[in-house]
Amino acid sequence: MEQIALTLAAKQTVHPIYVGAQAHASLHEWADLSCKTLILTDDGVPRAHVEAIASQCSNPVIMTVLQGEGAKSFSVFSDVCEMLLSHKFGRKDLLISVGGGVIGDLGGFCAASYMRGIRFINIPTTSLSQIDSSIGGKTAINVHGVKNIVGAFYQPELVIVDPDFLHTLPRRHLNNGLVEAVKAGLIADSALFDLFEQENPYDHLTEIIKRSLHVKQHVVENDPEEKGLRKILNFGHTIGHGVESVYGLSGLLHGEAVAVGMMPMLGSDSLRERVARVFEKIEIDPYKPYDVPQVLEAATRDKKAQGDTVSIIVVNEPGEAIIESISFDRLAQIMREGHQ
Amino acid sequence: MEQIALTLAAKQTVHPIYVGAQAHASLHEWADLSCKTLILTDDGVPRAHVEAIASQCSNPVIMTVLQGEGAKSFSVFSDVCEMLLSHKFGRKDLLISVGGGVIGDLGGFCAASYMRGIRFINIPTTSLSQIDSSIGGKTAINVHGVKNIVGAFYQPELVIVDPDFLHTLPRRHLNNGLVEAVKAGLIADSALFDLFEQENPYDHLTEIIKRSLHVKQHVVENDPEEKGLRKILNFGHTIGHGVESVYGLSGLLHGEAVAVGMMPMLGSDSLRERVARVFEKIEIDPYKPYDVPQVLEAATRDKKAQGDTVSIIVVNEPGEAIIESISFDRLAQIMREGHQ
Repeated sequence: MEQIALTLAAKQTVHPIYVGAQAHASLHEWADLSCKTLILTDDGVPRAHVEAIASQCSNPVIMTVLQGEGAKSFSVFSDVCEMLLSHKFGRKDLLISVGGGVIGDLGGFCAASYMRGIRFINIPTTSLSQIDSSIGGKTAINVHGVKNIVGAFYQPELVIVDPDFLHTLPRRHLNNGLVEAVKAGLIADSALFDLFEQENPYDHLTEIIKRSLHVKQHVVENDPEEKGLRKILNFGHTIGHGVESVYGLSGLLHGEAVAVGMMPMLGSDSLRERVARVFEKIEIDPYKPYDVPQVLEAATRDKKAQGDTVSIIVVNEPGEAIIESISFDRLAQIMREGHQ
Repeated sequence: MEQIALTLAAKQTVHPIYVGAQAHASLHEWADLSCKTLILTDDGVPRAHVEAIASQCSNPVIMTVLQGEGAKSFSVFSDVCEMLLSHKFGRKDLLISVGGGVIGDLGGFCAASYMRGIRFINIPTTSLSQIDSSIGGKTAINVHGVKNIVGAFYQPELVIVDPDFLHTLPRRHLNNGLVEAVKAGLIADSALFDLFEQENPYDHLTEIIKRSLHVKQHVVENDPEEKGLRKILNFGHTIGHGVESVYGLSGLLHGEAVAVGMMPMLGSDSLRERVARVFEKIEIDPYKPYDVPQVLEAATRDKKAQGDTVSIIVVNEPGEAIIESISFDRLAQIMREGHQ
């Protein structure tokens, strides 16, 4: 028997994120836009944003899908790939996502897969995607209602975060994204949590976004493929994804569900009270009642579940997160009792 | 404007390839098979091979797709992902491809994408896949007849190459794979080419497979994502893929098409004569006539085409390959004249 060992040394890569007012107008300064460029967006994104990007590209094709989670499907994934093929995109051409997390996840997976990877730039237009989903390289589609079950780790060459885009976002959607910033503060940046407690968050949006991105940057750099540390980003998400699976179709948003999932994972009643007051400031109800058996079933079907145990993240003090592995039964108990 | 730089340091990884008679029977010695395991195969693979693998797994699920290139489709890709989901596969579970290049490519892309990557082992059963397609991490499906247009770079944790599997392979399919070994000799291993010239290749199959794998190992290690050097593996494939696109549906095999594509890319008539004699030994016709405009259109639609030029690989002496960038017109001329 002969063993041949294929040894692959991967290179360090750098993926800049530009954050600032009117950042989108400077895209052409940071990226080569002289190639074919597919701008992927949805019909909920203000057309002016899309046109402002397209006008900087030499050879843009705009593809607009229907707004909503439904776009993260095999069917739309194949439509986008077929669009790239029909315009004869090559390996050095570019896909730019302009939209929320759905468009970022879908566009990222298409860019990762078409020709096994073409250039990808992400321009998030919602607070949720600016704060959380646009960086880290997690791209995916959904299958049979299970979120993000098929996808790739694929880093955009560039992310542009323009807080001015948030001016056109409905208040409820703005608040939805801010939940992930509260999460970032709780797991890794007590000063960010202080800012939510002591100030009016709406006066500090750019600062909140930047601090949240720094948290995510730190965590992702230390665990790009979610082998360990990165799990802390799932704080609130085990129950949150379950709640979102069950109530998302009736209109509950991702951040609203995650807020519900965060509360039982806080280490004390006093911290729970402080976090509840922060959520009140940003008009989020973290005590929305839910059907425990239904949510448990959805949460444990979720991809974080491994065998008979599930990872949860616990925060005892703002800025510090602990990863624990617990049984499904214990998770059910935590959900029923409202604390761990 | 603030720039946050996400810096990702990727790790070196090692992917062993075991080559030897009855290697498949030792799979359990090299891999943890105590998890859920999807064995993906097709109805052309002898059932005994599949059973011999499944019997070593604690918890096997066998999925058999229809033999042929048609399995590399969005539809079958989503079927496999849905099968993994319906059996609640988790991130640490395993997919094993048992079959030719189609099954390796399809299974690899599914393993790469399901949960953004689960464990993957490749057990190639044809000469073509043992010699060429099973290592290197290129996985893909086809779209609208364009080969390998959607996929991922994803390395199997283990490849098992068992030359005994070739005993059940029809001679024409055995020869089909040997073309890629001739290619490996021509681009990077003159001793391998000598072996084809001076010996009876069928007496040296294990040696031929090992030498071919060493060539591929060397090239892939130095260019895992096909940025440069790895292009030499495409020797014969620019025209070859075009010929395969046009005549594959009427039964021409990959290696048979690549042999046709190699001849015009040899640097002299004398080398062309030597290579033609080698192909005669393995019952391959490298001078099959083809429709130049049709093949040109298919070849330049192919993914190696970038803008108005196309990369070709030229071999002047066995063991040495040169990468050149030429115009579509020049490629048409080479095809018409039969030499470059």
